Amino acid sequence: MKELEKLFDRIVQRVNINLRELEFDVNPLVNKLIPTRQMTRFYAFYGLTPHHPLNFVFRHSNLSGSYFLGKVRVTNSLLYKSDIRGDELKQKGDLFQYQDFNIPVDQDEEICIDDSFLIKTLVHNFSHDPETLETFFIRDTVSTHYANIHGSPSDGCFYGPFSTVDLTTIRDCLVGAYAYVQAGEISHLNVDPGTVWVRLPDEFNFLYRHPSDRLTNYIYFTPGNVPQGVFMDFVEDRKAAFEQVFNIVNFKAPVTVPTSASVDRFAVIKPKTSIGDNVLVAQRAFLQNSTLGKGANAQENCYIINSVLEGNDVTAHGAKIIEADMGKTVFVGFNSFLRGRPNARLKIGQECVVMPHTIIDISKPLVIPPGHLVWGLIKNADDLQANSMSLKDFSKIESRMSKGRMLFEGSGKSFVTGFQERIHHILEANGAFYSNNNNRGHAQRNQNISFNTIQPYPKGGDKEGLYPTIIIQP
Amino acid sequence: MKELEKLFDRIVQRVNINLRELEFDVNPLVNKLIPTRQMTRFYAFYGLTPHHPLNFVFRHSNLSGSYFLGKVRVTNSLLYKSDIRGDELKQKGDLFQYQDFNIPVDQDEEICIDDSFLIKTLVHNFSHDPETLETFFIRDTVSTHYANIHGSPSDGCFYGPFSTVDLTTIRDCLVGAYAYVQAGEISHLNVDPGTVWVRLPDEFNFLYRHPSDRLTNYIYFTPGNVPQGVFMDFVEDRKAAFEQVFNIVNFKAPVTVPTSASVDRFAVIKPKTSIGDNVLVAQRAFLQNSTLGKGANAQENCYIINSVLEGNDVTAHGAKIIEADMGKTVFVGFNSFLRGRPNARLKIGQECVVMPHTIIDISKPLVIPPGHLVWGLIKNADDLQANSMSLKDFSKIESRMSKGRMLFEGSGKSFVTGFQERIHHILEANGAFYSNNNNRGHAQRNQNISFNTIQPYPKGGDKEGLYPTIIIQP
Repeated sequence: MKELEKLFDRIVQRVNINLRELEFDVNPLVNKLIPTRQMTRFYAFYGLTPHHPLNFVFRHSNLSGSYFLGKVRVTNSLLYKSDIRGDELKQKGDLFQYQDFNIPVDQDEEICIDDSFLIKTLVHNFSHDPETLETFFIRDTVSTHYANIHGSPSDGCFYGPFSTVDLTTIRDCLVGAYAYVQAGEISHLNVDPGTVWVRLPDEFNFLYRHPSDRLTNYIYFTPGNVPQGVFMDFVEDRKAAFEQVFNIVNFKAPVTVPTSASVDRFAVIKPKTSIGDNVLVAQRAFLQNSTLGKGANAQENCYIINSVLEGNDVTAHGAKIIEADMGKTVFVGFNSFLRGRPNARLKIGQECVVMPHTIIDISKPLVIPPGHLVWGLIKNADDLQANSMSLKDFSKIESRMSKGRMLFEGSGKSFVTGFQERIHHILEANGAFYSNNNNRGHAQRNQNISFNTIQPYPKGGDKEGLYPTIIIQP
Repeated sequence: MKELEKLFDRIVQRVNINLRELEFDVNPLVNKLIPTRQMTRFYAFYGLTPHHPLNFVFRHSNLSGSYFLGKVRVTNSLLYKSDIRGDELKQKGDLFQYQDFNIPVDQDEEICIDDSFLIKTLVHNFSHDPETLETFFIRDTVSTHYANIHGSPSDGCFYGPFSTVDLTTIRDCLVGAYAYVQAGEISHLNVDPGTVWVRLPDEFNFLYRHPSDRLTNYIYFTPGNVPQGVFMDFVEDRKAAFEQVFNIVNFKAPVTVPTSASVDRFAVIKPKTSIGDNVLVAQRAFLQNSTLGKGANAQENCYIINSVLEGNDVTAHGAKIIEADMGKTVFVGFNSFLRGRPNARLKIGQECVVMPHTIIDISKPLVIPPGHLVWGLIKNADDLQANSMSLKDFSKIESRMSKGRMLFEGSGKSFVTGFQERIHHILEANGAFYSNNNNRGHAQRNQNISFNTIQPYPKGGDKEGLYPTIIIQP
């Protein structure tokens, strides 16, 4: 195990050097988080398809339980049960538009992970930074349980559990538990836990902060302990079902899947689930007694339980939907936690936008009318009043508005349009609009993935737990 | 599938060019043997241990269901459910003794498979050819079901089903079904089916040929058909048990394994089986209601059913032992088929040597006294008389002897001593003599193997069924 331990020390030191200004020591937070023995227990795996540029290079790393798809290079890193998806990377010959620049993409984009420790983290999308189009880098970074690094090159950062950094280039920052950052480019910031921050410079700035005393019930992270709270209990309770799925080589979903849809063989599908046309169910999604209507999707680490999604609903990475009825084209952002109860169902009207990192946790029935924007922490109808607004009204904001704990500055119209365009793009990329062989997306392309497993050096030497150098090319 | 089909054509043409003198066309024999669709169905896999030099390079090949351990390079080849074991390859710094030559091994030996099509073939051991110490090559070669290529560099050859080439460098040869060749160096020969030939130039020559009319009951191979007969029926009947073993990721043998023994997780272990100290059970071995005493082994493709092996018994690759009682240190050679019946058990006394490719198939009890050499086709006591001799008597042969269909020339003593030394070496290599941390062999080293699976390009393009380039290095 010697080399694995050295590698851990090396990563921690590098992150601490980057974060020295913030006087932050990552070591006590992560040094006992994943016992070294645990890192050697799970196979890593990668997908092969006819569609994605193939190029994997793994060197001097541990990849335990992690998944790779697309062009990825991992060096001197520890990736524990992380999902590194490269099926939306830019390809050679693409033209990238940024403001007035039309930038040709010179070579196939690559996700480059160096000197980093990622725990149960999702890395997806592509680098939105015009300065680094061909390399989506993650360097000197430590991330913890269920963090999302989405389209966000990252250097010298620490991510708390269930945090998300989205379409943002980020350097030397601390991102607290359950914080969401979509801000273009940031550096040397300490983002508090529970912050939800969406900024487009010169256009708008949305800022909400979850009340810290109430957030700790959901997620709580202190040195020396694994993350705790409702979010962790919820996923831990459903872990055994995944173990089963990962221990079978040829697993067939116990559900009928239309030819235009795809259900990943590493998803858990419990009984009484129905899958419509053009549906995409990603790896590590969990469906139980639910209906996914045409074009709906369930992305990585989503849980959909006792719920109905009428169609074209987006369930972004890590979102949970329990005992809910979702109208058409409802967007549920990253790591949102929407929990109705058997006798207190949650009903969300069509075309609602549930902001990333929203918690709705009710004990009486609640209805969100169509076309609303919803954010923050909502436990009842009063909270809903304080934490929602119709998209129509929101679009009318022209300079500044505060409501409850939320502050908005800039153009509401630009904010709403931006969201709607993004939702449309997500549905398109996932194949929700597929028809007569047109508009193919992930739902159609992911039907034929070959999975390959890789394992570390076994017991019996200094290299125990390290993976050998592995190079996979066309 | 286009590229896969081109590859098949390329290999067949190359083998035919090599075999042009023998006017042999390999195409009708193999072109329908493994449907292309079948080649894309099974994962290939490789083992990682702390002990073996690690170096896999796979290029432009299909590897369906095949296994790799050690240093292997495969190019432009089709390997269907073959076992390529590289855990006895020579290592850099070794000294290889051959006659009066002491040859230093310059670099780690590599198994190099080019332009070949191997079906359910076992490749094992190391190149015994002093002319090519660092490369155990297999080129322009087609081999069929359950052939063994054992320590035998091979160029331009065709191997019939259940044939074995052992410690022989072989060029431009045809080896018929169930023929066994151990002859040092041969070229441009057509070896008839059922030939058992062991030659050490200037020392001895052992030659037996199975009666072809009776052999066809066991193995029969004609163009356009898969191999047929008792041997094929026997393995096909037990195929389902292996499917189960291959479809589980973490498989635990349902049997107690002493710490000094190893049972490969890809072996089938049926109930009522007992594993002694220092026992080695290799991949794709099948054990049922049997006892393996201390130091006994069951190598690849062995079946041991309702039998007792007292200890230090060698069951060489592909040998089958059914309803038999084996004394200590009995050697059963490659692909031998020893079948007693519930009321007609086969008893083999200690230190017997059952020649490779021996068939004993009885309907009345049969006892082979200790210390005997046995060969050929034996169905009753009379056959045994004609096809056996005590090792003591055999050692006395000084020039020439024929018995039944067997002809021996040269020194019986040299022949017997050679065999005994080899058996001792096999037991040693397999760890049968392990004690107090000394004399470690495969049984002890194979306890910690990490298995990794690899798959071909899936449906949806010309590359369907081909594996990408895969390079695994320390």
